Amino acid sequence: MAPLNVAVFVYPEADIIDFSGPLEIYSTNPPTGVPRAFQTTTFAAQSPVKLSASAMTLVPDVSLDEVDAELDKFDILVVPGAHPDMLNTYIPSEEGKRITSLLKSFAQLKPRQETGHRIIQSVCTGALILAASGILKGKKATTHHMSYDRMKELADEAAGGDSGIEVLRKRRWVDSGLNDSGVRIVNAGGVTSGFDASLNIVKLVAGKEVADWVQEIVEYEKRDEHNGWAN
Amino acid sequence: MAPLNVAVFVYPEADIIDFSGPLEIYSTNPPTGVPRAFQTTTFAAQSPVKLSASAMTLVPDVSLDEVDAELDKFDILVVPGAHPDMLNTYIPSEEGKRITSLLKSFAQLKPRQETGHRIIQSVCTGALILAASGILKGKKATTHHMSYDRMKELADEAAGGDSGIEVLRKRRWVDSGLNDSGVRIVNAGGVTSGFDASLNIVKLVAGKEVADWVQEIVEYEKRDEHNGWAN
Repeated sequence: MAPLNVAVFVYPEADIIDFSGPLEIYSTNPPTGVPRAFQTTTFAAQSPVKLSASAMTLVPDVSLDEVDAELDKFDILVVPGAHPDMLNTYIPSEEGKRITSLLKSFAQLKPRQETGHRIIQSVCTGALILAASGILKGKKATTHHMSYDRMKELADEAAGGDSGIEVLRKRRWVDSGLNDSGVRIVNAGGVTSGFDASLNIVKLVAGKEVADWVQEIVEYEKRDEHNGWAN
Repeated sequence: MAPLNVAVFVYPEADIIDFSGPLEIYSTNPPTGVPRAFQTTTFAAQSPVKLSASAMTLVPDVSLDEVDAELDKFDILVVPGAHPDMLNTYIPSEEGKRITSLLKSFAQLKPRQETGHRIIQSVCTGALILAASGILKGKKATTHHMSYDRMKELADEAAGGDSGIEVLRKRRWVDSGLNDSGVRIVNAGGVTSGFDASLNIVKLVAGKEVADWVQEIVEYEKRDEHNGWAN
């Protein structure tokens, strides 16, 4: 199978682990002799991008326009989170509207012919951006534990009424399955949950052996969907 | 207390989680009303820096020369790892010699007067760079589980004989305590262990309440020094 093309969105003040967790998991080499299952790309509306409070300035590989123009060639879109106050300003901004519009288009594609997959993956409050784009309507979803209510508000606003979103709390990730077009939507919980959600996607796409290998290389203990959340 | 100045080293092909894990932990806001305990800076010998296999290009905040010239003002130096084959080339290179020399100088400073701390923290195979600089002589230490023997080799080479390093296996981190100058040396195990080692340093510097808060914000379950390593 052709490697899955993973496009990781970055934007000002995005949380660094929210996007670098999935990047690490998808870019870890598989066992010798096993072909790489993923090819990663970062994209942004600006370059360079200054990230969350920490000292980190990133040069994205390609622009949001470039990804938009070739949306069909990507199998996985990763959307990291940021501080919820920042997202309240960001989501209605011009750049915010461009990414919600891109998400809406991606959610209507068919699975990519070469791979049979099409996945939207949020990490942490990245799920608020998904909610605002309307694609969580009628879906089970999760997000960072301080933003459950805000996610429902944004999903309802996008639906112009009750969105029917079902918020699942204290999950490392939620895989709500395929939408009508065949696009899978996966939300990670807060920050480090992005490792678990990504390892689960590796398992789905490349099998348990590769997922276990990657987990061992990064010395991470994968939690299952329900357990392990520290109360 | 003044915030601790954390300088995080980045170099070509450095692993992204090795350095962004500590950056995330040290830059997470403490509970309301509690002053920030850390101030983070990235530094490198070049700009921009292209990191490990994944798509990530970073613009460091300051240069290696700038950190070298003001070494005394930093409380914590973080050294991430990379693929061990790459480190075999990197460590003897001109840039490799500059960072091992900087580590040697830092390890001879007294604790910083304003904070009472001075810490060298490696993550993953970053410990190989510490070993090559000679500062792990007579110390307990750990690294990524595939590089235990290589770490000992490099420590012995630096010592020109038996370094007396004691390699501890399958640890999330090892805090070998203070050296003769009063500099604490902490090694994280592989990749994601950097979260655990950093949370432990937060606990040491800012107390358990702040460490627990940060852990909850990033939805991470801190392991203790001995347990939790996936066999």
